[in-house]
Amino acid sequence: KNILIIPGDGIGQEVTTWGKQALEAVARKYGHVFSFDEAIMGHTAIEATGNPLPDETLEKAKASDAILFGAIGHAKYDNDPSAKVRPEQGLLKIRKELGLYANLRPILLFDELLEASSLKPEVLRGTDILFFRELTGDVYFGEKTRSDDNTFASDLMNYHRYEVERIARKAYEAARTRNKKLCSVDKANVLETSRLWRDVVQEIAREYPDVETEHMFIDNAAMQLVKNPKKFDVVLTANLFGDILTDEASQIAGSMGMLASASIGDGTGFFEPIHGSAHDIAGQNKANPLASILSAALMLDIAFGLQEEAKAVTQAVADTLKAGWRTGDIANANTSATHILGTNEMG
Amino acid sequence: KNILIIPGDGIGQEVTTWGKQALEAVARKYGHVFSFDEAIMGHTAIEATGNPLPDETLEKAKASDAILFGAIGHAKYDNDPSAKVRPEQGLLKIRKELGLYANLRPILLFDELLEASSLKPEVLRGTDILFFRELTGDVYFGEKTRSDDNTFASDLMNYHRYEVERIARKAYEAARTRNKKLCSVDKANVLETSRLWRDVVQEIAREYPDVETEHMFIDNAAMQLVKNPKKFDVVLTANLFGDILTDEASQIAGSMGMLASASIGDGTGFFEPIHGSAHDIAGQNKANPLASILSAALMLDIAFGLQEEAKAVTQAVADTLKAGWRTGDIANANTSATHILGTNEMG
Ligand SMILES: CC(C)[C@H](C(=O)O)[C@@H](O)C(=O)O
Ligand SMILES: CC(C)[C@H](C(=O)O)[C@@H](O)C(=O)O
Repeated sequence: KNILIIPGDGIGQEVTTWGKQALEAVARKYGHVFSFDEAIMGHTAIEATGNPLPDETLEKAKASDAILFGAIGHAKYDNDPSAKVRPEQGLLKIRKELGLYANLRPILLFDELLEASSLKPEVLRGTDILFFRELTGDVYFGEKTRSDDNTFASDLMNYHRYEVERIARKAYEAARTRNKKLCSVDKANVLETSRLWRDVVQEIAREYPDVETEHMFIDNAAMQLVKNPKKFDVVLTANLFGDILTDEASQIAGSMGMLASASIGDGTGFFEPIHGSAHDIAGQNKANPLASILSAALMLDIAFGLQEEAKAVTQAVADTLKAGWRTGDIANANTSATHILGTNEMG
Repeated sequence: KNILIIPGDGIGQEVTTWGKQALEAVARKYGHVFSFDEAIMGHTAIEATGNPLPDETLEKAKASDAILFGAIGHAKYDNDPSAKVRPEQGLLKIRKELGLYANLRPILLFDELLEASSLKPEVLRGTDILFFRELTGDVYFGEKTRSDDNTFASDLMNYHRYEVERIARKAYEAARTRNKKLCSVDKANVLETSRLWRDVVQEIAREYPDVETEHMFIDNAAMQLVKNPKKFDVVLTANLFGDILTDEASQIAGSMGMLASASIGDGTGFFEPIHGSAHDIAGQNKANPLASILSAALMLDIAFGLQEEAKAVTQAVADTLKAGWRTGDIANANTSATHILGTNEMG
């Protein structure tokens, strides 16, 4: 298998090293042959070439069997609302070019981290959510305008029926293999886009009568996720709402540093932590590499169908946590049994 | 003072009775003269007139000194994405017609309810957030389209500079009277609308050098609100993001049933609980009337400048909670000292 590593920006560089090493360890142990290549994207690529997604990176991406990505972004652009070239454009473009329309974000809860969350353990215990976030449509990709005199700006939120259909089917298929409950999140009481979304989901739901479907407004979902996360099984939602809900849901897992994601679609799959580039702690050996390692596990499972290998990686993470090892973001001051490690030691 | 009561739909009918009674009690005790009128809106108005915001209601609203509103919505429309006339249109139209561009949502934390939340008490203690949600712009009011063959739908997200300016000023003024910290939430790494938003807020920030400004992406904000709500003081954000964040933040206060809001702008102010019509518990004497009573307190404070009277109402709520009285939504199974009441008894 040809695996392309794109470390990206900030802590992406540090954590991806460890996702890659997890893949190498699996290759050694199970006798697979993985060959690795590397490419640049984001701020790192802008610095080197002026382009957040150089053609060479895109070509390598298309030619590879799977991609392990780190993180994107730099504070420099965040505080300059008029910058024309931005790191995030690289990520959005590669999602679009590779047709990565389904972003899977499993909220995996390790028992050892129950105490690391700001939510009460009894609220969390038993939570197991799989998000399906649409990733190549919505207000992310609609036409943008800014008036010449800078007094007006707009972004077009929009969905085509086929875009909703294909991700809805993927989500329903997954729901079938789980607890057979699917919650579709929208804002159909206000948005036309959401009304189309709900329309299509209701239609696809009929093909899956064994799955219980619920429709929920995004405001209510953002609330229920804190109030009673256990009530969710598969959550299906649009690009923007999914961005918000999955970051919020990271607190169920104790930290953003624990969550991996898989973006899939027409071709090569793309695997990445859901956390950002966190420039404030970059280069300090502080970032949690577990999300990258768990992203490697998702790659083994989803891109290569290597379920046993994927489980071994996830189990290694669980064992490490059980032994009391923690990075700063998941350390809990109340538990004396934890040993705080840097990125490399944890990796 | 002329006060218009619009109970609206579902539990709006029940809880508004008690907000009104709080105003009547204040009038009696402090010797004010409040005269009340009533009008219909939402599903209730559709049933009666076919129009979610009848002209008569709008005229009465414009002529009044303040409005106490209940809730809007009905499941019937939620599950019918093709309905042309919808209850929510009434609420959106009255916001627009009255120029209610600033929606203030204080997250008021009563010590007695610390245990009612799904968040840990130590995470919550000391939290005091005031949201400024823009209320008459954004994707809520931009042009909507749906293709004839139902294969495409869109909503235009957009902001004008003046719309951001006026709410930003209101938020900065409020921050000055509080802890002098303002967090503006957007998605400037993806949305042009957000880049304009950030541009304008950076500009207005210069007029308030005594206030510390932070810019945060919506996904991060949704996460931080669960992780460490104490870090926020004034939060300024757009219509859609504000809708999501404030519902999420209701869990800090223990329940949606505790949160009041004030919508203000060019003329008459509009006061309402942030909860919805909750048809599942409507007519069962189960709804928490405290958000409506606290909305009455906000009216006294903001619309009429009656600070002492507003404090008396809020104190009455605090005393009632201290005495152990609870509605179902804020009762905590772990505390034996609570007595569960219905809507009317609590009111
Ligand atoms: C970096 C940003 C463009 C991106 C997004 O909003 O999709 C990120 O937040 C994510 O969730 O992957
Ligand atoms: C009912 C709905 C249109 C409304 C909104 O989204 O603004 C509600 O959720 C609110 O927050 O007041």
